[in-house]
Amino acid sequence: MNNYLKTISRIALLICFCLSFSLKAQSDEDVLKNIYKQSLTNGKSYEWLDYLSNKIGGRLSGSTNAELAVQYTKAELEKLGLDKVWLQPVMVPKWVRGEQEMAYFKTSNDLNKVNICALGGSVATPEGGVKAKVIEVNSYQDLEKLGEENIKGKIVFINRSWEQELVNTFQAYGGCAAERYAGAAEAAKYGAVGTIVRSLSSRLDDYPHTGSMGYGDLPVEQRIPSAAISTNDAVKLSEALKKDKDIEFHFEMSCQQFDDVMSYNVIGEITGSEFPNEYIIVGGHLDSWDLGDGAHDDGAGVVQSMDVLRLMKESGITPKRSIRVVLFMNEENGLRGGRKYAEVAKEKNEKHIFALESDAGGFTPRGFSFDCNDLMFSKIEAWRPLFKPYLIHYFEKGGSGADIGPLKNDDIVLAGLRPDSQRYFDHHHAANDTFEHVNKRELELGAATMTALMFLVDKYGTETITNTKEIKD
Amino acid sequence: MNNYLKTISRIALLICFCLSFSLKAQSDEDVLKNIYKQSLTNGKSYEWLDYLSNKIGGRLSGSTNAELAVQYTKAELEKLGLDKVWLQPVMVPKWVRGEQEMAYFKTSNDLNKVNICALGGSVATPEGGVKAKVIEVNSYQDLEKLGEENIKGKIVFINRSWEQELVNTFQAYGGCAAERYAGAAEAAKYGAVGTIVRSLSSRLDDYPHTGSMGYGDLPVEQRIPSAAISTNDAVKLSEALKKDKDIEFHFEMSCQQFDDVMSYNVIGEITGSEFPNEYIIVGGHLDSWDLGDGAHDDGAGVVQSMDVLRLMKESGITPKRSIRVVLFMNEENGLRGGRKYAEVAKEKNEKHIFALESDAGGFTPRGFSFDCNDLMFSKIEAWRPLFKPYLIHYFEKGGSGADIGPLKNDDIVLAGLRPDSQRYFDHHHAANDTFEHVNKRELELGAATMTALMFLVDKYGTETITNTKEIKD
Repeated sequence: MNNYLKTISRIALLICFCLSFSLKAQSDEDVLKNIYKQSLTNGKSYEWLDYLSNKIGGRLSGSTNAELAVQYTKAELEKLGLDKVWLQPVMVPKWVRGEQEMAYFKTSNDLNKVNICALGGSVATPEGGVKAKVIEVNSYQDLEKLGEENIKGKIVFINRSWEQELVNTFQAYGGCAAERYAGAAEAAKYGAVGTIVRSLSSRLDDYPHTGSMGYGDLPVEQRIPSAAISTNDAVKLSEALKKDKDIEFHFEMSCQQFDDVMSYNVIGEITGSEFPNEYIIVGGHLDSWDLGDGAHDDGAGVVQSMDVLRLMKESGITPKRSIRVVLFMNEENGLRGGRKYAEVAKEKNEKHIFALESDAGGFTPRGFSFDCNDLMFSKIEAWRPLFKPYLIHYFEKGGSGADIGPLKNDDIVLAGLRPDSQRYFDHHHAANDTFEHVNKRELELGAATMTALMFLVDKYGTETITNTKEIKD
Repeated sequence: MNNYLKTISRIALLICFCLSFSLKAQSDEDVLKNIYKQSLTNGKSYEWLDYLSNKIGGRLSGSTNAELAVQYTKAELEKLGLDKVWLQPVMVPKWVRGEQEMAYFKTSNDLNKVNICALGGSVATPEGGVKAKVIEVNSYQDLEKLGEENIKGKIVFINRSWEQELVNTFQAYGGCAAERYAGAAEAAKYGAVGTIVRSLSSRLDDYPHTGSMGYGDLPVEQRIPSAAISTNDAVKLSEALKKDKDIEFHFEMSCQQFDDVMSYNVIGEITGSEFPNEYIIVGGHLDSWDLGDGAHDDGAGVVQSMDVLRLMKESGITPKRSIRVVLFMNEENGLRGGRKYAEVAKEKNEKHIFALESDAGGFTPRGFSFDCNDLMFSKIEAWRPLFKPYLIHYFEKGGSGADIGPLKNDDIVLAGLRPDSQRYFDHHHAANDTFEHVNKRELELGAATMTALMFLVDKYGTETITNTKEIKD
């Protein structure tokens, strides 16, 4: 090496040293500030979401779009210069909606066309549809009292309304999700010929909202078709039934369940510099329902999770532990991706200390909920003041995310990003879950908030958070 | 009175007694819970906003729409059974946009049409428009350095970009508002023939955002036309200027300033049961810019403020002090309504102890900012735990609202509702400030949050908040 090159090489080393020193000297406050700035001025999440939503679209498990989403996100992760990117094979169910559903009911003077959609997993109606009288209930749990004499041969209409007074809309959703999932199986026991479930939506409009349903151990020949009806049409039908209980409802659906097909979880990793065998993961689910483009559920979580690893790199963070982004397949109608990831992690004896999921929409982040023991929670809660400048105040114990649930054990902290929930169920599982309803800044604030938490977990771990000097209130 | 009537009357009295007792026995927590429930299940704000936005539309001071909004809100307040509803006359400026503005610039191969709009208060271009070379600056403060030799005869293009990294978007707005307001007056001093100001917007899109500008004491004959350009077109123009600094920009505007006209603040009152001469007011501004329908700015604040009085009545709250809703006219281009209200209050020696304004959009409420002394603030801050169940955590000292500003003195607390600010400046003063971008639940949560604060201020006053037993942390 000649002198000139030596000098250059020494200067380069000096610059590297200074850069690494300056990063180490940065307070946590400064690191977070830089992460938020990077995300808001130089984020990639919105651009990725635009592609996933508008170039690909709805990504139901087993569909061509789901396959395209696997290939696209893998290719994008490969561009980030991670240490590893790979596909984890998983067999997933393949349910197909078929032709658009049709439904109407006749009153004395009018033919009332209504908006329905098949619930995911439903059987089709027989050729020509189902036409029958309707019995309205508030819950499938009312069916036992009514008994076969009131139900047999009829369509059960479960018209359970949304509890608008609950500020956390996920609580309201929880209050009617069982109606959608179990209604048909229960109604079939009493001889019903179909079920129509009021959409699980926080507003009155014309969109039917799909979602998963199941028949449990009901024999195949006893299964009856189940549809969601828009909230406006649920109100209309209920009013019509008050005037004439003998109204007949007609609906047609051509959905179909195929054999399971091969699909994939998409995984990227920055291998830890000190503890490569300790894993911290962040993820969302790559599949979505088919009616919209799945921008909020869960395109947002996917692109935010991808951006966590990119933002760490952009911010000059060299993680001590291995950081993985996991884009899970098949959350919506099977959870096969989440189960597969946990199964493989167990087989390989990989020590996972923390998992974060974003699956509550791409809205302004309000905080996190943590599924862990009190000691771990109190350690994490000490980081809350670092998030105050970003108007985050919600650090509570609670659920995390469906996909990371199978990882649960006594040593792992599971966490869920908690965005503002007011708008989520206007769009959830409906044709209006689309890209234009995602705000760029809200999405990017979520990505930054997730990155900030991942940085702190990596820096302090979940067991040994004692350095209170660096965590100022 | 016969025995039957006596019995009925005794039962009625007993019911009244029990109801009043049960309300008095209610904890503050219970009162707030009921207020939020009323707003979310039985609110009127969204319905009123639908009318203001879709049946009336943009409500610039002095326009027919502004007059319609005065008559509509007065009539709606009269339906609420308040103690008084009246109009407070105020002279307001009348500026009219005229025909839609037009602008383009030519590059070597292309004619580039761009989206502009006149800033409120601007003079028109001469017949046939203004056509001139362009000088780009980051701020009007750069003009002095450039001097007349670089500016004379040119159009000054103030291309100051938005600070995306600021989480509070109002800070970013504050960072460029002076460019819009004062740019033209400053450029005219150096012989510019027009100004084009980059829209004060948090995103890149095709909407120009209007807003007020002023010429100060610049003689009428020296005034030059000033327009906002969409952010996308600002980027395009800037890039073109980098390639060719001699590009000519052409724009035409036919806006016009007329003589002042008579308009009104709309006021409704529930007269206090114990201290009728102490006033607590809540309000928003009834006027809006003309491009959209003014749903967020400030239709939301208007209907939320109206609903505060309705929700108090619906919740069985009998205020001790006089509660007023004030719908101010002419916040956008004159603040005449706010000044008039304060002037009359002073003339009549009305003791105002608290004023709350909602003028930051109908988004999920995050808290309030308070303009008052430290002692008053510490008393108010003790109420914060009551708002925690509604995910409100932001109680800070800071600004309040433009319309209530003129009431400022040492004895009054001024407060501003602080909704989530991420989306506000996507819509602010632009054609996309429209009803469909307001979420019903978010709007209603704001109305409830305002009602809750007004209830506490009325119950405890701002000077004598000592009953800590009722305020649990």
